[in-house]
Amino acid sequence: MIAHVRIEPLTVAAFAPYGDVLEAVGAPDRIINEGSCERFHDRARLDFGPDGRAGLSVFHAMPRSLPLTLELVERHPEGSQAFVPMSADPFLVIVAMDEKGRPVNVRAFRTAPGQGINILRNTWHGVLTPLAGPGRFTVIDRVGATPNLEEYRLAAPLVIRD
Amino acid sequence: MIAHVRIEPLTVAAFAPYGDVLEAVGAPDRIINEGSCERFHDRARLDFGPDGRAGLSVFHAMPRSLPLTLELVERHPEGSQAFVPMSADPFLVIVAMDEKGRPVNVRAFRTAPGQGINILRNTWHGVLTPLAGPGRFTVIDRVGATPNLEEYRLAAPLVIRD
Repeated sequence: MIAHVRIEPLTVAAFAPYGDVLEAVGAPDRIINEGSCERFHDRARLDFGPDGRAGLSVFHAMPRSLPLTLELVERHPEGSQAFVPMSADPFLVIVAMDEKGRPVNVRAFRTAPGQGINILRNTWHGVLTPLAGPGRFTVIDRVGATPNLEEYRLAAPLVIRD
Repeated sequence: MIAHVRIEPLTVAAFAPYGDVLEAVGAPDRIINEGSCERFHDRARLDFGPDGRAGLSVFHAMPRSLPLTLELVERHPEGSQAFVPMSADPFLVIVAMDEKGRPVNVRAFRTAPGQGINILRNTWHGVLTPLAGPGRFTVIDRVGATPNLEEYRLAAPLVIRD
């Protein structure tokens, strides 16, 4: 029998152990541009490691449909990774806790329009999973010379579903 | 008589003197996630100055309609500023060259779906100008203790239009 993981809505509180939710919600930190713009300031725990620097890349990912079979997660030991969707379409954010180098307690979140995420350094997560095409994202992560990817293939696949 | 500036489509070549266009166009630099994702790697000339660090903020800006009267431009002497729209709606990018501390040759570009921008350090630009609501953007710019904003009020307003 295959274990199932139910999709939850993405909220700041639920996602805090794994990273930051990027959204314009609540009270802004500043009002700028002569009153025309709210700034929610410095909302991500960015981390580019001891020998890296911030890089800005664009990802174009194939959309996936639900239910989704999860077989692989990954993490980045050298830095955080932020995903900003360049559309209002939802995407799926799959994360897990670590127990002695193994991902455990997989959770899945669906974003709402206007939400992006920043995944903390060394946090297990699924690959980028848009739920609608064309799936274009700006990614802010570490650029550096040393390896920054660890993959883990699940012994037993999980089914992610509503 | 008020001078007019005609809006141009945003292209990499036209925008190169002012900054970078963030888009998934042309050949990707890498294919990742077992073939499911194209990575256009490290596509912005990020610059956080000598004493700053990278910060990630969210902006929520009021939409503007055309034609638009431009009276103010600004620049950031301590760092670059990237704007990633969190929707597929277009926004207006207004930039200018510098001549002895004064903005000259104002140009205006309209983005297409899936385009973001990175404005180079010390480049004159208009404030964030979404053309449709609600105008949510993730902004990657310099966080630091020293002033990083220079404003310039145009002696003669310009009308930006199609």
